[in-house]
Amino acid sequence: MSETTHERSTEYDPSASSLSGEVDPAVMQELLLIRSSIDNIDAALLNMLAERFKCTQRVGWLKARHQLPASDPGRETAQIARLHRLAEEAHLDPVFAEKFLNFIIDEVIRHHEAISETHAAESGL
Amino acid sequence: MSETTHERSTEYDPSASSLSGEVDPAVMQELLLIRSSIDNIDAALLNMLAERFKCTQRVGWLKARHQLPASDPGRETAQIARLHRLAEEAHLDPVFAEKFLNFIIDEVIRHHEAISETHAAESGL
Repeated sequence: MSETTHERSTEYDPSASSLSGEVDPAVMQELLLIRSSIDNIDAALLNMLAERFKCTQRVGWLKARHQLPASDPGRETAQIARLHRLAEEAHLDPVFAEKFLNFIIDEVIRHHEAISETHAAESGL
Repeated sequence: MSETTHERSTEYDPSASSLSGEVDPAVMQELLLIRSSIDNIDAALLNMLAERFKCTQRVGWLKARHQLPASDPGRETAQIARLHRLAEEAHLDPVFAEKFLNFIIDEVIRHHEAISETHAAESGL
């Protein structure tokens, strides 16, 4: 228990800041409060991303196994249109939302290329 | 009710695909099942991102009001180290996780610049 606490404090200090010395303590406290929400959200985002990549890995294997083309323009168009609508509902810039999807898709493509190479090697192609 | 269904079907078709004609129906069904999980995760990601930007907007206003510097190297170093650890726990490439954080931070900086300009205009600076 004390070891866990010790590990945490050496690994991550949620109050780490280069500002501490110069800032009104009440302002610093408010800043740290908001930052602890950002930290929680980042953990949620990373875990959702990990789950998303598990899904796209499954798609990658399915496509490799059945020799389906890597890209699916019909799906991509529908996805982008939906994302714009969801972004508007969440008061998020739709242009940013689309950039975000493309950022993730670039990583998915890297994964799919790796899967495809592994599948080809396993099939002796 | 029927109107909602109608709107949904014209706005977003979860089975939209350019592959449909060429694929074994059982494989297509499996693909659509995985894609519906991806769609749910994307909605969650967008909403978490919107919430994160609400937090960073608050940080932006706080910093503008108290003339704090936009960047905080101590915080950023701690954040990146934490992200690497979280990524490893979630079996996510830590390099990708860091790229992801930088991608978001670029957008946060754009927001903060806008806040800073608005604040300066409101203060008559």
